[in-house]
Amino acid sequence: MNDQPAPSPLAPPGGFPKLPVVAGVRFASVAANVKYAGRDDVMLAELAPGSVVAGVFTRSKTCSAPVLWCQEALSAGQDAGGLAIVINSGNANAFTGQKGMDAVRATAAACAKTLKISQSNIFIASTGVIGEPLPQDRIIAKMDALKANLDAHSAESAARAIMTTDTYAKGTSETVELDGTVHIAGFAKGSGMIAPDMATTLAFIYTDAKIDQCVLQQIVSTGSDTTFNCITVDSDTSTSDSMIVAATGKADMAMITTLDDPRAIDFATALHKVMRDLAHLVVRDGEGATKFISIIVEGAENDRAAKTVGLSIANSPLVKTAFAGQDPNWGRIVMAVGKAGERADRDALSIWFGDILVAAKGLVCPDYHEDAGAAYMKAQDLCVRVDLGVGKGAATVWTCDFSHRYITINADYRS
Amino acid sequence: MNDQPAPSPLAPPGGFPKLPVVAGVRFASVAANVKYAGRDDVMLAELAPGSVVAGVFTRSKTCSAPVLWCQEALSAGQDAGGLAIVINSGNANAFTGQKGMDAVRATAAACAKTLKISQSNIFIASTGVIGEPLPQDRIIAKMDALKANLDAHSAESAARAIMTTDTYAKGTSETVELDGTVHIAGFAKGSGMIAPDMATTLAFIYTDAKIDQCVLQQIVSTGSDTTFNCITVDSDTSTSDSMIVAATGKADMAMITTLDDPRAIDFATALHKVMRDLAHLVVRDGEGATKFISIIVEGAENDRAAKTVGLSIANSPLVKTAFAGQDPNWGRIVMAVGKAGERADRDALSIWFGDILVAAKGLVCPDYHEDAGAAYMKAQDLCVRVDLGVGKGAATVWTCDFSHRYITINADYRS
Repeated sequence: MNDQPAPSPLAPPGGFPKLPVVAGVRFASVAANVKYAGRDDVMLAELAPGSVVAGVFTRSKTCSAPVLWCQEALSAGQDAGGLAIVINSGNANAFTGQKGMDAVRATAAACAKTLKISQSNIFIASTGVIGEPLPQDRIIAKMDALKANLDAHSAESAARAIMTTDTYAKGTSETVELDGTVHIAGFAKGSGMIAPDMATTLAFIYTDAKIDQCVLQQIVSTGSDTTFNCITVDSDTSTSDSMIVAATGKADMAMITTLDDPRAIDFATALHKVMRDLAHLVVRDGEGATKFISIIVEGAENDRAAKTVGLSIANSPLVKTAFAGQDPNWGRIVMAVGKAGERADRDALSIWFGDILVAAKGLVCPDYHEDAGAAYMKAQDLCVRVDLGVGKGAATVWTCDFSHRYITINADYRS
Repeated sequence: MNDQPAPSPLAPPGGFPKLPVVAGVRFASVAANVKYAGRDDVMLAELAPGSVVAGVFTRSKTCSAPVLWCQEALSAGQDAGGLAIVINSGNANAFTGQKGMDAVRATAAACAKTLKISQSNIFIASTGVIGEPLPQDRIIAKMDALKANLDAHSAESAARAIMTTDTYAKGTSETVELDGTVHIAGFAKGSGMIAPDMATTLAFIYTDAKIDQCVLQQIVSTGSDTTFNCITVDSDTSTSDSMIVAATGKADMAMITTLDDPRAIDFATALHKVMRDLAHLVVRDGEGATKFISIIVEGAENDRAAKTVGLSIANSPLVKTAFAGQDPNWGRIVMAVGKAGERADRDALSIWFGDILVAAKGLVCPDYHEDAGAAYMKAQDLCVRVDLGVGKGAATVWTCDFSHRYITINADYRS
């Protein structure tokens, strides 16, 4: 991969973290030449018999064939014979019509046959260019090789195999003590076309927790609303966003069968932290990003309104370019609050950059000096806080800035 | 103005057009040093006694003091003693609290006294930086000079006085034969923070038509929905969008008193053409623009849905950067249709670049060759047509591309 770009300046130091082995999960990856040459571009995850799976997917009206497949599989339900997930990069298999659906079916059938599990227990995800037929035969031809390479320690190479314009592989993990020790690990990919509307652009999280599928699904759905659905790189929702969470049940613990179980809360807290960490890693690899920005909106009419205002700020090209220019341009924050369409009162609005109160009650603060704002803007991780002053709703969203490199990357992606 | 940037490559050839003198309207402009030095930055328009006025304004929840003033004045109504419009550039008088409102009131009072007309007949608009107190005394000090300079032939210098990041002054006119000859002329400003949500960033249109105020207001409101409200440069709705249309009644014609009058339709057609031309001129001066793009959406559930899908395409950073890169990346169009949230059927969707059918019924056309798309993309004026295939709704929106110059302009606007 000679053309691999330098890692984002916001990439976490230390590279890909050491993920724990999660009992019941094995990985393999392979170079199938789907589009990229000379690198792994297909990964397989095998989940032991008894595993359950939950997922959230893009709400795009032009979603990809693999998304449709996974949604159908999830609603049909899985048997206890073991699960598998096949993910390729380089081709999204989106807007490929009936051929695209046929490609998913053929891949699932091949995987099911190779691993001797049910076809409806196979989940598929694809990421890459939209509108080109998927050469599924190249993936199917590698199925035996994938099976032969399955290994509990291969998460990192699996995470690398699903990268597209990513500049680094993204992984994280948590350990939580319930009645037994539970491990949660996951990885994700994504850099552009990031404004998830249900999940993200491909995240895969696995745990050895023993948990009922319905409870897992509820925890995953709730968590995605405050994690992946609160990030945006460019406001462009992908056709392929998929987050799949699988639980093998191999931890030494009693089954969690209801959300009322206090252990469900502890597990959800840990799982949501993994989801949030992965979501942040995606923003930190935002195309051309030089700043990681947390936007906290408080005092909104309700939480939904707060999130709408937060995303209005986070998606504003004028706000994002001001961050790229290290310009404490709070007037553009005011503009973005105003255009969001949610209840706001100009004369109740307050704005902070970090701990610096910039504007209060609809006016710039007499104590605020542009020098202080400009100095704050030089940091790599920034926080903007907005109090709308009309209610108790709150939300936090995360985004990155809009730099020359974003244009460079995206004005020349396919050629 | 040594720092005046080169005109947009999309600027109309021939410069500012020769606008007709419209009976009953006179202009003046002056250098008041509101923010810019060495150029006119305040303009006054005087409308003869008997003139009526209509307007549409931003729906921003953080709209500027002048917008609030104009909305109040319009709903209170005007007397027949003559009108005036005062516009300054360099400072938007937005997010300036009570001081901002006081500044508007003081300016209106000074203008009313100088021209000997009612204060409620004065309309005010301001454009420029948000959040800085307006130095209204500098404007008020020039009121006598403005009055002394009033001239029916000074529209062009008035149009220049309201420019901010504009690279050229924008004007247009129409003549329509009713029972008498009616002239319509107008000018506008705008380049960034353009996603009007009711009107534009400052457009002022004047006519000698003899027309009832209520009829004029209805024609203006209807027209803004398919003209100014259908353009976007950067999805960022301004705090200051204002379009004011004044009719002096000096044309030799009978009064239009109802929308049912056939002349109202002819007049509306001409007025809407002026509004559309001005809106296009704003897009052609979009910050960093190198392409003017018409996006036609057909086959939507209804017209509103078509417009939502059109704006989703027009505002997508990935679509806009693809245009900048002359990349016929129709996959990003599919993505933008999908994320719009309106009814769409992947397998009914068709896409054209100009006359080139790229994708039909959910698949790339077998006859389509990327070379043809790439050749088309080299033109300066482009048209994307999308047929959703689910209904009869249609809309057209206009936008520009997203280039390196957009980032350059906006990452360094205030410093």
